[in-house]
Amino acid sequence: MGSLESDFLTMSKSNNNSKEFNPLDPEEFREKAHKAVDFIADYYKNIENYPVLSQVQPGYLRNRIPETPPDAPESFDTILRDVQNDIIPGMTHWLSPNFFAFFPATVSSAAFVGDMLSNCFNAVGFNWLASPAATELEMVVMDWLATMLQLPKSFKFSGSGGGVLQSTTSEAVLCTLIAARDRALKEIGVQHVGKLVVYGSDQTHSTFMKVCKIAGIHPENIRSIPTILENDFSLSPKLLRKVVEADVAQGLVPLYLCATVGTTSTTAIDPIKHLADVAADYRIWVHVDAAYGGSACICPEYRHFLDGVERVDSLSLSPHKWLLTYLDCCCLWTKNPNLIINSLSTNPEYLKNKINESNDSVVSYKDWQVGTGRKFKSLRLWLVLRSYGVTNLRNHIRTDIQMAVTFERLVRSDPRFEIVVPRRFALVCFRLKQFNGFDSAYTELLNKRLLDRVNSTGRVYMTHTIVGGVYLLRFAVGATLTRDHHVVSAWELIRETTDALVKECYA
Amino acid sequence: MGSLESDFLTMSKSNNNSKEFNPLDPEEFREKAHKAVDFIADYYKNIENYPVLSQVQPGYLRNRIPETPPDAPESFDTILRDVQNDIIPGMTHWLSPNFFAFFPATVSSAAFVGDMLSNCFNAVGFNWLASPAATELEMVVMDWLATMLQLPKSFKFSGSGGGVLQSTTSEAVLCTLIAARDRALKEIGVQHVGKLVVYGSDQTHSTFMKVCKIAGIHPENIRSIPTILENDFSLSPKLLRKVVEADVAQGLVPLYLCATVGTTSTTAIDPIKHLADVAADYRIWVHVDAAYGGSACICPEYRHFLDGVERVDSLSLSPHKWLLTYLDCCCLWTKNPNLIINSLSTNPEYLKNKINESNDSVVSYKDWQVGTGRKFKSLRLWLVLRSYGVTNLRNHIRTDIQMAVTFERLVRSDPRFEIVVPRRFALVCFRLKQFNGFDSAYTELLNKRLLDRVNSTGRVYMTHTIVGGVYLLRFAVGATLTRDHHVVSAWELIRETTDALVKECYA
Repeated sequence: MGSLESDFLTMSKSNNNSKEFNPLDPEEFREKAHKAVDFIADYYKNIENYPVLSQVQPGYLRNRIPETPPDAPESFDTILRDVQNDIIPGMTHWLSPNFFAFFPATVSSAAFVGDMLSNCFNAVGFNWLASPAATELEMVVMDWLATMLQLPKSFKFSGSGGGVLQSTTSEAVLCTLIAARDRALKEIGVQHVGKLVVYGSDQTHSTFMKVCKIAGIHPENIRSIPTILENDFSLSPKLLRKVVEADVAQGLVPLYLCATVGTTSTTAIDPIKHLADVAADYRIWVHVDAAYGGSACICPEYRHFLDGVERVDSLSLSPHKWLLTYLDCCCLWTKNPNLIINSLSTNPEYLKNKINESNDSVVSYKDWQVGTGRKFKSLRLWLVLRSYGVTNLRNHIRTDIQMAVTFERLVRSDPRFEIVVPRRFALVCFRLKQFNGFDSAYTELLNKRLLDRVNSTGRVYMTHTIVGGVYLLRFAVGATLTRDHHVVSAWELIRETTDALVKECYA
Repeated sequence: MGSLESDFLTMSKSNNNSKEFNPLDPEEFREKAHKAVDFIADYYKNIENYPVLSQVQPGYLRNRIPETPPDAPESFDTILRDVQNDIIPGMTHWLSPNFFAFFPATVSSAAFVGDMLSNCFNAVGFNWLASPAATELEMVVMDWLATMLQLPKSFKFSGSGGGVLQSTTSEAVLCTLIAARDRALKEIGVQHVGKLVVYGSDQTHSTFMKVCKIAGIHPENIRSIPTILENDFSLSPKLLRKVVEADVAQGLVPLYLCATVGTTSTTAIDPIKHLADVAADYRIWVHVDAAYGGSACICPEYRHFLDGVERVDSLSLSPHKWLLTYLDCCCLWTKNPNLIINSLSTNPEYLKNKINESNDSVVSYKDWQVGTGRKFKSLRLWLVLRSYGVTNLRNHIRTDIQMAVTFERLVRSDPRFEIVVPRRFALVCFRLKQFNGFDSAYTELLNKRLLDRVNSTGRVYMTHTIVGGVYLLRFAVGATLTRDHHVVSAWELIRETTDALVKECYA
């Protein structure tokens, strides 16, 4: 068949105008990527020059960009110029050292290059054979972080559990909720899904409600148990028991509790141990959402916030919030991987291979998540843990908290302000007090005005929330580039803005 | 309060051993990232030197890596050396030009730098204000790609619909299924969820079953309608109608149909138009999963595979498969964004802002997906579309298909082989024929052996499937670096391995 082949080879060669289009030419790759590195390093260097909160109006970008894609190629220089001129003005600069909104999304050189390496391979690690290193490194890194958090063996691969990287807390909650749901439905019958009840507090992340609805929990069976200021907005085990008992009395079936270590509004902490006591009496699956607060628990002095974790079923924590990994990176550990796998496994013929079939110890991460495909995400976390080491990461948490302490002291030093809830981590919840002669509605209005004015300067970005009927300002320290002087300057701006506001009030 | 402040500043300065730890120092970032660029460019240059399919055994990596994370920092050079020595041997090289397994996961310099820029900002674009550019660019790019696919206005923001970037097809199906489910439950009552029935074929992606179960569709109500070889494994509208009628006769409620343009096993194509006819009679939500095949439809000569799309409710397509974007990137368009938003929206106080409250035209993408947080993903797709232009992207699709045609002709030129199903795109499904005197079980065994031997050389990686009871080999062309001579060499290897196998059979 020699001649046939040479025919094909000839055909192939004559066909090689395809050579003109090589989107992964290594030298062109090198050139573009080096250029991007410098662009990004310069952006980080100059980031303080941009207003933190974008000042554009809705529609600004759609008006600047053609309605249809180009037919012909455009140069990287042209595109970079457009990023500078069109995109950057529309960015809210999450990495600015003057970003104190929401929770920070932290980053590092190590995670950046970790993600570059992950992209480099572009491996789709749905099962072991699809890239053994991707599966095994994820197992190693999840055990590493479990060790840093002093999690019991029951959550580790080296014990009887295991961990997986998800995109978001929402996905982590969804996967564990489905596992709990299916275990319960096996016992009570799928037709009784309407009896299943799930529990959180009124401070539980808003995504909990969404995820429960996705999982088919009937909306009227999603309990949002009230919390109070006097209890620092943490979920009361006593109240939980009451609510659960009432449900059981009605013939309902308690299913799942989402407890939080560091709520989004005020970093409230639910008492895991006592909640787990209640849950145990009713075989409720307990999940701990430690998306933000969990990272602090790598420091021995904060580990007590996880006390009782040995009695829960699953725990999630998002290193993209406080452990410098860039988005998105959410760690989920569970004692019951098999329950998740029972619910989420698929076994199509085209993914079968001898090693998966013959080796029980081989993990197929596709069965631990919603999707089938998945990136080699653990590289980022591995790079962070190795590049900085546990000691530096602990100090990084402590430094952030120390800066929040500084801000808290500054607020306390001004009698016009009050700290609304105790500071636990690096978030300070404060507000202008109710002034003599003004009602609470006016106080809220003043605080709103203060927030608006501060944010509209572009020099600082912070956000608000309402808890227990109180409108308060949130000052979340921890953007990777933030240093003490940024915190002090932010306070200066808040103080000066307040001076002007107060003057107007009494004018 | 001047003195107070200077106290704090002094405290800050004395506290500044924190300066020693700066994980985002721009110059250190620059140095590390440049090093990573060269590492990756060299990897791409030398990628053919590695066995395509990893040759390691389970547990290989866990035995090489310490059980606990380091306390002290390790250098990037050390880590890169470990990537080379420990990680790369455990990689199945998806970007190798000799990777013909599954479907390729395609990449490009443009998407790589696009993702670098996305990471650069690390913006969490849950709503418009959190980064206006992230929301608006996604809207623009989704409309661009819709234009390239000649989708009707009803799927575009410039019309009455819209698009969103999801991580995976699973998530796209989940979000639309929930929207359809909740619309139906509103009419029939949540207690009747057990009546809802969903439809796919036995060739629909395995994740469909998983996603339906997540959404609480009762497993016995998930119809997997059989397909046959004679019909090229496409879903028969006639058969669909029969199944739906039977369900309706039983008092069940038809809900959702997942039709596929390019199934995973054999790239079969479900006839959208005729399926939509059936669906319309029963108000079934029709979703088109064009994860792989959809990309080809940017070429006018393949667009007919989407005929009838104007009558469906939603469509998803994964550019990470064939449009060079790196993982993960799945486009979802829908005519009914409001139905998705009704099901998935959350409105916590801490995310409220004046612009979202006052401007109906402002999109909050958090309400179009499972999670709350989301990366600035559209940059990657924008970079690809602009850097290459529509003409090049079309030619890229055509070149891949042309290489598959080459392979198909090579297979046909050898009388020992047969093409099992017609080639539609860049996947060739073939097998060794049943030889005289051997039964079908032995034929399957021979094909398995052929696959094993070819893959174990490390020179080529391809996979298998079973459809209609037939074990066949899948040869998927389209890894970004693949050129004609790789296809011809792969065939050479297959032919030579077959020579040896056949010799043994008759020995």
